Amino acid sequence: MTLDGKIHGVLAPVITPFGGDLSPDGDRLIAQCRWLLSNDVGLAVFGTTSEGNSLSTGEKLQLLERLAASGLETARMMPGTGTCSIVDSVALCKLAVAVGCGGVLMLPPFYYKNPGDKGLFRFFAEVIERVGDARLRVYLYHIPPVAQVGITPDLIERLLTAYPGIVCGMKDSGGDWAYTEAVLRRFAGRGFDVFSGSEAILLATLRLRGAGCISATANVNPRGIAEVYANRHSHSADFLQEKANRVRAVFQMHPMIPALKALLAHARRDPELRRVRPPLVELSAEAQRSLLDELDRIGFSLAA
Amino acid sequence: MTLDGKIHGVLAPVITPFGGDLSPDGDRLIAQCRWLLSNDVGLAVFGTTSEGNSLSTGEKLQLLERLAASGLETARMMPGTGTCSIVDSVALCKLAVAVGCGGVLMLPPFYYKNPGDKGLFRFFAEVIERVGDARLRVYLYHIPPVAQVGITPDLIERLLTAYPGIVCGMKDSGGDWAYTEAVLRRFAGRGFDVFSGSEAILLATLRLRGAGCISATANVNPRGIAEVYANRHSHSADFLQEKANRVRAVFQMHPMIPALKALLAHARRDPELRRVRPPLVELSAEAQRSLLDELDRIGFSLAA
Repeated sequence: MTLDGKIHGVLAPVITPFGGDLSPDGDRLIAQCRWLLSNDVGLAVFGTTSEGNSLSTGEKLQLLERLAASGLETARMMPGTGTCSIVDSVALCKLAVAVGCGGVLMLPPFYYKNPGDKGLFRFFAEVIERVGDARLRVYLYHIPPVAQVGITPDLIERLLTAYPGIVCGMKDSGGDWAYTEAVLRRFAGRGFDVFSGSEAILLATLRLRGAGCISATANVNPRGIAEVYANRHSHSADFLQEKANRVRAVFQMHPMIPALKALLAHARRDPELRRVRPPLVELSAEAQRSLLDELDRIGFSLAA
Repeated sequence: MTLDGKIHGVLAPVITPFGGDLSPDGDRLIAQCRWLLSNDVGLAVFGTTSEGNSLSTGEKLQLLERLAASGLETARMMPGTGTCSIVDSVALCKLAVAVGCGGVLMLPPFYYKNPGDKGLFRFFAEVIERVGDARLRVYLYHIPPVAQVGITPDLIERLLTAYPGIVCGMKDSGGDWAYTEAVLRRFAGRGFDVFSGSEAILLATLRLRGAGCISATANVNPRGIAEVYANRHSHSADFLQEKANRVRAVFQMHPMIPALKALLAHARRDPELRRVRPPLVELSAEAQRSLLDELDRIGFSLAA
């Protein structure tokens, strides 16, 4: 966090451990959260990597209560609260505000395709009005490769004008640098904090006044990515960026979420951590071997 | 319904009326359901046209209880119960079985793209096992233009083999006749009932042993579409099909859901019916005028 109290730096969309009956495993989730915080990485729980949309709203509400009650620093938490339904999103946002979350990360409603900016504006506005709390901090979640429905610069402009201070940033997982650069040049410095969705463009984002990154691989390489951020003004920045990129590149050769869970399970000697909820499937034994070999080859091992 | 007790014929994904606070209007929904049933059209509530994914699971559970309690014939009901979360889908399926629904219409989990058949099989299997009731009748919902995630013939084969009698049909809104024909030739007659997602191919589907259609426009033209089905073996079938097609063609020139609601609101002199939930937006006054003019021109008016 910076002096303005807003979340900056590196966050992980925290993986959600599941028990044998596929219910969320709160204890293991809290352990992962603590470890990430101790490595200077904030908590974007219920994101894409968290299998957030594979959880029911009831499950998310319960987990968030539990995380807050466990004493985790909620000011460093940015739970995913965007769903296809206004009612669900409002319930999640209200709880996030009540437990003191530093922000919420909101997907646009993603069932109907090409809804148009007018309808998306109405959706976000309706949620913000219903939450009706000046402490709400909304980060828009742009991830068209998955959600298919994206956040246009014009939509950002409308929301920022209507709800200054409340709509206050975004996560950009679009994978399109031209978009990222355009958004940074237009909105950074207007109280709108852009987090890249991948550490591969962390330095580039920061150099255009971006706020940090929220990246899947921060689940396994928190220290390595946090060091890029911490040393952003140092001469070692590019070296650290390249080092982090090599780790990411290995994971990108595999289905990301099962691969992250496979490595955590292996490193912690806790096979339970491998489990994913359908429709995802666990990494095959063969793919896991190949992942571990590749990580060995680049000399990567999980931070303590 | 036919003698085997399974739903056949024409169903409407029933539009969901909303009140001024955007909450579902149970009274108006029940009225629309009664009117559809009286016109020989079954009830696929919580479908795409119903804005089903814009409702929370809690809202759907409450509405379904209410519909059942109102005395509507639940055997002619096929509520949408497919969500991104196993937990939500199980809750909806269990209630549907408990109140005697003739079937459930299940979208695949639609957040993660390209999940693969293995993961989708696991999702459906997990829901079916958890419901654990031989009365469950699952209709798979194939609508890749919206959900992006589709149902492959191989997935149908696996599910039909694992859960015969339970997995018992599909709605095909793919808009790809080659797919429809392949599925009909491979699965019709194996206890797998294919409903087309548009009345435009109703006769063609029935002639390859399909079971009927589940179509948005059945909300406004129930009688016209039901007549195609009722007269499928008569010499007037093609004439009736063409007549229904002309009505559909007019609606296809507009955003479908707002246009259906606009016509119902106009015909019933009940402006409340126009309302949609974000991210959808109501039809503009201009578009509504054009819709009504076009319907006038082809001599269409709402059945009594």
